Amino acid sequence: MPVRQGRYTLLLPSAPGIAGYAAVGGKKEGEGPVGGKLDYIYDDATAGEKSWEKAESVIHRDALTRAISKAGISPADVDVIFAGDLLNQCTGTTFGIRELGIPFAGVYGACSTMALSLAAAAVCVDSRIAETAAASTSSHFCSAEKQFRMPLEYGGQRTPTAQWTATAAGAAIVSGKESKIHIEKVIIGRIQDYGIKDPNNMGAAMAPAACRTIADFLNDTNTVPGDYDLILTGDLGAVGSELLCELMIKQENIDISAVQDDCGLILYDIVKQKEIGAGGSGCGCSGAVVCSDIFNKIENGELKRVLFVGTGALMSSVSSLQSESIPSVAHGVLLTGG
Amino acid sequence: MPVRQGRYTLLLPSAPGIAGYAAVGGKKEGEGPVGGKLDYIYDDATAGEKSWEKAESVIHRDALTRAISKAGISPADVDVIFAGDLLNQCTGTTFGIRELGIPFAGVYGACSTMALSLAAAAVCVDSRIAETAAASTSSHFCSAEKQFRMPLEYGGQRTPTAQWTATAAGAAIVSGKESKIHIEKVIIGRIQDYGIKDPNNMGAAMAPAACRTIADFLNDTNTVPGDYDLILTGDLGAVGSELLCELMIKQENIDISAVQDDCGLILYDIVKQKEIGAGGSGCGCSGAVVCSDIFNKIENGELKRVLFVGTGALMSSVSSLQSESIPSVAHGVLLTGG
Repeated sequence: MPVRQGRYTLLLPSAPGIAGYAAVGGKKEGEGPVGGKLDYIYDDATAGEKSWEKAESVIHRDALTRAISKAGISPADVDVIFAGDLLNQCTGTTFGIRELGIPFAGVYGACSTMALSLAAAAVCVDSRIAETAAASTSSHFCSAEKQFRMPLEYGGQRTPTAQWTATAAGAAIVSGKESKIHIEKVIIGRIQDYGIKDPNNMGAAMAPAACRTIADFLNDTNTVPGDYDLILTGDLGAVGSELLCELMIKQENIDISAVQDDCGLILYDIVKQKEIGAGGSGCGCSGAVVCSDIFNKIENGELKRVLFVGTGALMSSVSSLQSESIPSVAHGVLLTGG
Repeated sequence: MPVRQGRYTLLLPSAPGIAGYAAVGGKKEGEGPVGGKLDYIYDDATAGEKSWEKAESVIHRDALTRAISKAGISPADVDVIFAGDLLNQCTGTTFGIRELGIPFAGVYGACSTMALSLAAAAVCVDSRIAETAAASTSSHFCSAEKQFRMPLEYGGQRTPTAQWTATAAGAAIVSGKESKIHIEKVIIGRIQDYGIKDPNNMGAAMAPAACRTIADFLNDTNTVPGDYDLILTGDLGAVGSELLCELMIKQENIDISAVQDDCGLILYDIVKQKEIGAGGSGCGCSGAVVCSDIFNKIENGELKRVLFVGTGALMSSVSSLQSESIPSVAHGVLLTGG
C-alpha cells in the first residue's frame, strides 16, 4: 500500500515490477541512437493507413500489444490501462485500443503522459487495486505538426529552439510478478507557468515544471542528485535541459547537471540529425526511450536508480493563438533495478 | 484499501465522503429545473473574458474553488486533483487551475470525466494515497460548438437527436472526514464501439458503453436495478436513454427503466427549453447535476443509493471528418447516503 513520503512523493513498498515493455518508432527514430533497441520500425510513416491520426493509433496499439505479449499475458488479463496522447481528445489512444476490451482510464499529461500513466499503473498495483495494469502513449510527427503547427506541405522554417515530435509509441505492463525493473516511488507534479508564450520553445516552458518536481522529490525523499545514476527528463531537448540545470542551481541550489539527461536527446542524435533541432518531443518520445533503452539498461544492470521525470506543456493551438502562456507539469517515477 | 468485487468493480471499504461540492452554470442552465441549486449562475457566457475558452477556464476554477472553500479547506490542503474537460488538450482545466498549486493528474474521459475523476479521487482516499482529493470538470456551449461543430455565427440547424453542450462546471472534494455522501464502489469502463458515426447522435453512440458498465457493475455486485434509487447516466439525453433501456433488456435481460434517469434530462427541461434538443451533454452537464441536485438529495435523504454512470464519446472532430465511428466509454461510481 502506498505511503506518503514528505508532502508530494508516494513510496510504493511493494515496488511493482515491469512485466513487459515495448517501443516502436518511425524511420527517423530507427536511425537514431536507440533505433536498434526499438521493437519495430515503421519505414512507412502512414503505417498503411489513410491518415496520420489512424497511423498513430496503429503504432499505439502495436506497442501496447507487444508489451502485453512480452509480459506473457493477453489483453483480458490487464485489469486497467492508463493511456493518453497529444491528439485532440486523445484519439491516438482511444481509436488505437478500442478493440482490446481493457478497462480504460484516460489520462492527459501532454508529453508527461508516460510518467503519469506509469505512476498511476504502479500505484494501482502497489495498492492491489489491480494485479496487472498497463501504461501507454504515442505521438506522430505528422499528426502533431498538422494539429499544432503548420500543414507539412507548407514547408515552414523551424526555429533553432523547436523540438521534433517523435513518431513513436511506448507501453509497459506493471504487475507484482518478479521483474528486474521496479517502480519504487512516484510524484504527481504541480502546474508551473513562467509566462513563456513561444510554442516553438517548449523546453523553456517546461523546464520550470521539471525543476519544481525534481526539487520536491529530492526534498521529500531527503536525497541528492548523486543518489541517482540518471535524472531523466522527457522531453526538454537541449535548450530546456540547459535551462533546467540553471534553474535547479539558481532556484533550488541543487546541481543535477552531472546526472541529468533527456529523452529528447537520447532518441535522436541532434548533431547528425540536424533537422531534429533542439531535440525530440511528443508523448511517444519519452514513451519509446523509457520502454526501450532505459528499461533495457536497468534490466542488464547498466543503470540502477533512474528518476524519470516526464514533462508536459499543457497548451493547445487555440490557447497559443489567444496569446496565452504555456502552463506545464512534470510527473516523476523512480525506476530501480534488481 | 480498495477490494476487487467481481471482475471490474472496486469496493471501497472506507466509503470516502464528499467533504464539499459546488456547481456553476450559464443562463440557460440557471433557467433549467436545477438552476436554483447551482452555486452561481453566469448570466454572461463570456464570464468577463475575451474568449469562450478562457470563460470555460473561469467557470472551472470557480466551481473548484467554491468546492474547496465549502469543504472548509484551502487549495494547499488538496493532495491531488483529477480533472479534465472536452477542449483540445484539456485547456479548460489546465488554464483554469494552473494557479492553485495542487498536484494535477489530468484525466480524459470526454463527458464521463466527472465519474472518472470522482472514481480516481475516491480510490486515492480509500487507499490512503491522499487524505483529500479533488475531482472537477467543465464544458462550455460556445467553446464546444466552435471546436466540434460549426461557428456559432453560422447558425446551423440542429438535428432532433443533437444534444446541447452545457455551459457548466462541477467539482467535489473527497476525503475520509465525516460526510452525508459517500462513494462506496467504482468501476472503470471498457470502450465500446457499435459503429455509430453521427456526431449529432452521441446518445446512440454512448448507450452501448453505459449498457456494458451497468451490466458489469450489477453482475459484479450481484445486485438488481431495484437495489438503487437511481441509475443516473450522464449524458445520453432522451434518445440515448431510450436506447440504453432497450439495450439493457435485449442484450442483458435487465430492465432498468424504472430507476434510470439522465443528467442531460435533469439539467434542462427539454419540453420547455426546445432549443436543447434531445438533452444536455458535455463534461459540465453531469458535473453540475451531480455536484448540485444529486449530492443535495443524497444529503437530505431523498436519495440513498445512486449508481452514477458517466458516459463519454471518445471521438474528435478530425476522426468524424475521417468517417470514423464513435468509440465510447462509461465509468461508474456508487453514491450512497448516511
